[in-house]
Amino acid sequence: MAAALSAFIHEYKEVLEKELKELIEELQAPKVLKEAMDYSLQAGGKRIRPMLVFATLASFQKEPKIGLEAAAALEMIHTYSLIHDDLPSMDDDDLRRGQPTNHKVFGEAAAILAGDALLTYAFQVIARSNNYSSDQRVTLIEWLAKAAGPEGMVGGQMADIEGETKELTLEELEYIHKNKTGRLLAYSVMAGAMLSGADKHQLEHFRKYAFHIGLAFQIRDDILDIEGSEEKIGKRVGSDSANHKSTYPSLLTMAGAKAQLTEHADAARAALRQTNTDSALLFELIDLIVTREQ
Amino acid sequence: MAAALSAFIHEYKEVLEKELKELIEELQAPKVLKEAMDYSLQAGGKRIRPMLVFATLASFQKEPKIGLEAAAALEMIHTYSLIHDDLPSMDDDDLRRGQPTNHKVFGEAAAILAGDALLTYAFQVIARSNNYSSDQRVTLIEWLAKAAGPEGMVGGQMADIEGETKELTLEELEYIHKNKTGRLLAYSVMAGAMLSGADKHQLEHFRKYAFHIGLAFQIRDDILDIEGSEEKIGKRVGSDSANHKSTYPSLLTMAGAKAQLTEHADAARAALRQTNTDSALLFELIDLIVTREQ
Repeated sequence: MAAALSAFIHEYKEVLEKELKELIEELQAPKVLKEAMDYSLQAGGKRIRPMLVFATLASFQKEPKIGLEAAAALEMIHTYSLIHDDLPSMDDDDLRRGQPTNHKVFGEAAAILAGDALLTYAFQVIARSNNYSSDQRVTLIEWLAKAAGPEGMVGGQMADIEGETKELTLEELEYIHKNKTGRLLAYSVMAGAMLSGADKHQLEHFRKYAFHIGLAFQIRDDILDIEGSEEKIGKRVGSDSANHKSTYPSLLTMAGAKAQLTEHADAARAALRQTNTDSALLFELIDLIVTREQ
Repeated sequence: MAAALSAFIHEYKEVLEKELKELIEELQAPKVLKEAMDYSLQAGGKRIRPMLVFATLASFQKEPKIGLEAAAALEMIHTYSLIHDDLPSMDDDDLRRGQPTNHKVFGEAAAILAGDALLTYAFQVIARSNNYSSDQRVTLIEWLAKAAGPEGMVGGQMADIEGETKELTLEELEYIHKNKTGRLLAYSVMAGAMLSGADKHQLEHFRKYAFHIGLAFQIRDDILDIEGSEEKIGKRVGSDSANHKSTYPSLLTMAGAKAQLTEHADAARAALRQTNTDSALLFELIDLIVTREQ
């Protein structure tokens, strides 16, 4: 990873994780609920969505911390989705990033409620923020709910579950990924751009950038499930294939999937150049997504 | 029920249910997800929360339909909470209002996702509304998230689940009910009052009104679980006692619970008089809550 991006991620990961910790500590809520929320929020991960918020602000020469509450809300929603996805009735995963999943530690009921609480609290954190105008808050909330709800992430997860029992077409697979992971990644960039005062033209190019890195992210995920190292990923590899799950490599061959990955990375770079911003970090994030080992 | 309230409920129930139907129809989302969301939204119920929004607006001589989007969002959040509460890992209920519960019809994964989708969509509906100013939307969302999240409904449900395994004190029981059902009922009234332009003084009295009807509602629920008719309630009676669940009658005796019910109803009436509004419908709603058979 380039030194500038590495230092940036190191700095803002710490800022974000401190904020998340404080947001849970201040809650007047049952102890076990707070522990379950905190457990998954602090379970690490790449924090790619918050980094996209911060890096987009930086590309406009804005102070990245302006995006802190938006980024924290985003990470809470991403985290709730992982908790619910891991449940026995969904993907039934025991491990996440090398640690026992939420329901393995706190039980199923508490895990469902911790997810519900994180999702709800995310909107509260944005709505009450004094750092954004009411208009900005309303826009952040509308976009976030659309990206995370039935027309976005939840819709993608539903289609993913339905798709597990059949062979998917490439179109169906793209619908799932565009919604399940793509829309929240796109929101991250759009939130940063909106808070930076981007114009319509710039917002559109950022949207394209985010769309392509979203698909690149997912293709890389599928590739890692075959070629990756169990130790680095923190979960079993080969699980997609064992579950007869349709993936980019299974539909396009490994070479075809890698070619698509390169195409999306190139398209993301092209879109980024059109934004006329100083987006060095966002360019480096593309490389990070394309070459990541975990 | 008094004729005025009965006509009011009849009229606005229809308005609300039409709105809920349309809100689901317009979604670009997987068919089964929309069906699962719609199934529980259309499963009936008293729609007490939306009626509180509408009746509070009416008490200020405002057009009740001003509250339509706030009321729809509220009913979506109430409905999501019922879907998740009924899950096997929570209360494990097969019937709700005489119909099979969501997960019995659509399966557990779809039920969890339908709940997540309703919760998320509720915030989207308010955030995008052109009928409220940005300031009003931000206030509605902040209050709703606080009432529904870890410091409100979800916190109450967590405490309820933890409390199932032990005998509760009256204080613990009140914490559960204040949060599990009380806060969302209070929000209903507060949302209507805020949209009516209530001043701080009035908001405070409406908050007290809502607090007391919330507890009255729950005490009546506990009483109905013992004295009620299975046919009218649409679920088994005696389940609290069979589950050794602490209730108002079990902690206070049946006579004691009924005395508390009367006290809360009287306190609600006193608070309502202090609001200096024309609250005939809100007075009648107290009677409805205290005497309801389902």
